[in-house]
Amino acid sequence: MARTASLSGFPELLPAERLVELHVLDTLRRVFELHGFSSIETRAVETLGQLLRKGEIDKEVYAVSRLQDEDQETGGGQGSRQADDDQLALHFDLTVPFARYVVENAGHLAFPFRRYQIQKVWRGERPQEGRAREFTQADIDVVGESQLPFRYDVELALVIVDALGALPIPDFQLRINNRKLAEGFYRGIGLDDTAGVLRSIDKLDKIGPDKVAELLHNELGATTEQAHAALKLASIRAEDTSFVDQVRELGVNDDLLEEGLAELEQVISEATKRAPGRVLADLSIARGLDYYTGTVYETVLLGHESLGSICSGGRYDSLASKGNKKYPGVGLSIGVTRMVARMLNQELATASRPVPTAVLVSLNNDESWSAAQDVADALRKRGISTEVAATAAKFGKQIKYADRRGIPFVWFTNDDGTHEVKDIRSGEQTAADPDLWSPPAADLAPAVVAGS
Amino acid sequence: MARTASLSGFPELLPAERLVELHVLDTLRRVFELHGFSSIETRAVETLGQLLRKGEIDKEVYAVSRLQDEDQETGGGQGSRQADDDQLALHFDLTVPFARYVVENAGHLAFPFRRYQIQKVWRGERPQEGRAREFTQADIDVVGESQLPFRYDVELALVIVDALGALPIPDFQLRINNRKLAEGFYRGIGLDDTAGVLRSIDKLDKIGPDKVAELLHNELGATTEQAHAALKLASIRAEDTSFVDQVRELGVNDDLLEEGLAELEQVISEATKRAPGRVLADLSIARGLDYYTGTVYETVLLGHESLGSICSGGRYDSLASKGNKKYPGVGLSIGVTRMVARMLNQELATASRPVPTAVLVSLNNDESWSAAQDVADALRKRGISTEVAATAAKFGKQIKYADRRGIPFVWFTNDDGTHEVKDIRSGEQTAADPDLWSPPAADLAPAVVAGS
Repeated sequence: MARTASLSGFPELLPAERLVELHVLDTLRRVFELHGFSSIETRAVETLGQLLRKGEIDKEVYAVSRLQDEDQETGGGQGSRQADDDQLALHFDLTVPFARYVVENAGHLAFPFRRYQIQKVWRGERPQEGRAREFTQADIDVVGESQLPFRYDVELALVIVDALGALPIPDFQLRINNRKLAEGFYRGIGLDDTAGVLRSIDKLDKIGPDKVAELLHNELGATTEQAHAALKLASIRAEDTSFVDQVRELGVNDDLLEEGLAELEQVISEATKRAPGRVLADLSIARGLDYYTGTVYETVLLGHESLGSICSGGRYDSLASKGNKKYPGVGLSIGVTRMVARMLNQELATASRPVPTAVLVSLNNDESWSAAQDVADALRKRGISTEVAATAAKFGKQIKYADRRGIPFVWFTNDDGTHEVKDIRSGEQTAADPDLWSPPAADLAPAVVAGS
Repeated sequence: MARTASLSGFPELLPAERLVELHVLDTLRRVFELHGFSSIETRAVETLGQLLRKGEIDKEVYAVSRLQDEDQETGGGQGSRQADDDQLALHFDLTVPFARYVVENAGHLAFPFRRYQIQKVWRGERPQEGRAREFTQADIDVVGESQLPFRYDVELALVIVDALGALPIPDFQLRINNRKLAEGFYRGIGLDDTAGVLRSIDKLDKIGPDKVAELLHNELGATTEQAHAALKLASIRAEDTSFVDQVRELGVNDDLLEEGLAELEQVISEATKRAPGRVLADLSIARGLDYYTGTVYETVLLGHESLGSICSGGRYDSLASKGNKKYPGVGLSIGVTRMVARMLNQELATASRPVPTAVLVSLNNDESWSAAQDVADALRKRGISTEVAATAAKFGKQIKYADRRGIPFVWFTNDDGTHEVKDIRSGEQTAADPDLWSPPAADLAPAVVAGS
């Protein structure tokens, strides 16, 4: 990652770095499956019409067209912009494709449907740290048919705490808010363009409270008192349910506000009990995307706040719908590439060796290759990753090859048919039987460990 | 897979089908790593110049452009076809991107470099059975710096036999030929456009020997005797090294032919010894792509020959080069999507259940959710995939939910704090301790088993 990508915004990893990423992906998958989430993948392309159905992300999309489109089956050929319905584009997240998948396959799925999805997504944004043009997301969502119990809002926060907690990363904190709470509050103080207020509040981190107050005044016609109240609400943070009293002290009455307060209280009280120190009620969290309708989540790595959120999501009441049937859901998305890039750049985690191989079986002479493969087969049968030397170079050269590749053990077969294995780090060499010998557990596979 | 893809050529799987695909991918990865191959991934896009450097695949490529390309950083905007050097396109295989990766990162890699790479690729071809527009390939290659011992040509065939042999698929056969053998033979009988002959021979399966003879005559000016000899060579098949004598009987003398014969003899003799019945010397195998220079491989599923090759590859002496440095390699690519589609369509393999979940923890009442999470945590800690019911519906309804999802066990907590677990398939219910109980090994995770 210290190397420069040959195509800006499209990072590629070296094998040892990829081991760190694989460890992250494997760990997330394991935890998601332990919680009963099924794997699915969706195609990389959607129609432009599908992608732009929600929100304004026009700029970020990569269009896809066949280079020589003879039969005009799909996509726009060079110079001919096709209708949005046919034009294909790479997906920019996994939520929109998942919504389409649910509607298309509803008859084959059991609801509430729990799925995880780990795939690349593409956005044509200007590359910078923490923001690539091609990156991997790991999403979990639960989607119901017509309705979805609120409890899933609590459960998904706990699954994410479990998943991130299993990774070799610094302490993290889920910061949770509720759209109903915020929107009800704004309505209660007389600011009816609640989406507009949310958009302004979303800029708090970037431009500060004074500029946000200005925005609220200039763009939404808020009075000084209204702007003050909205900022006051956004300043509330609590590691327990004390935020409820703090909101009540602001003296605003609204049914939707009450509903949101009750929901957020439920999430925070259960999550602080089961995952103390991992969650925070943060009433400044807005999340830009329009489709959230209740709980919203962000996640920061403590000490790495400038990186932005590494895991975000929320509740949506009707991201997907077909006819008059709605599919409400709640989900979160982990920014794997952003997180792994930071882990690698700051050596927060490293692989103990760059290759899977534990043992190199050396050759006495060129004719011994087949016998060496027998040794290798015996070791592999017991789960020990093994390579065989390709040529009968001098032993010193074969050992050097292992050393250069990071392989810890070299296997020798003596003329009398007995075997020895050498730990090339310590130099220790012992008699060994291909059907019995195993490396120490720590050397069996490359381990990914938290950095110094 | 029985369902129609909503976008032709872009198949998507249901959760139970995805389990079969995951099983294939996990198995391939495990075997590749046991043989010391490192995982890498390359970006999905390459520059068009890079993609078209070898061979003529212009038609098949999907170009990628930012929809609103304000700063002209990458890709061609609408209506402006950019130079091939800047225009981005989706990769159509993993070999070309790997060659670029090796050249770019040569200073950071230990040679011979062994890597596996499992990713999606895209081709704008007309979709048909066994041919999608988006599909997954699983590649292994070994690449050397300046030179690569021939032995790797033998080794890679054995790795593939190991990998495919670990899958729940029908018997398969690697069919192996050697470009040097074929080209030397053609040269030896006076046909100097050896690439042209190979291209004609490549059509044998599709158009038959008479048409191929016609092609050789009309397009390459071959005499009847030359066409006959070329077809005679292509008709040779042997499960052992007897092909050597059969070729010699044709009475052609050429140094390159001799070199190819010796190489193919080495591969076949070692592979038939270590993997009897799995390999065949098939002197009709040509492989279309120009960059192969020695051994070439194809693989058929026996009884499914019409599907085409499920794993192909070969030796290339200079796919990648930088200045006067060459990186010769040998590799094979498994067509995962093609193979999995067949496995699903013909039910050659199925998942024992559609979800990872082994246990649903039921709720006595709404307040027991947190206690139920404690039970679930205890089970998950021991690797048992567990969900908690979201609402305290009647037990019958909770059991029905488990049944509908394919979850085999439902957990109950009695008022006195004792626990019971019910196998909802047999109806058997027994006392259980969350810290001790485990499902039978066969029920721990969904198993993928060869079909009836």
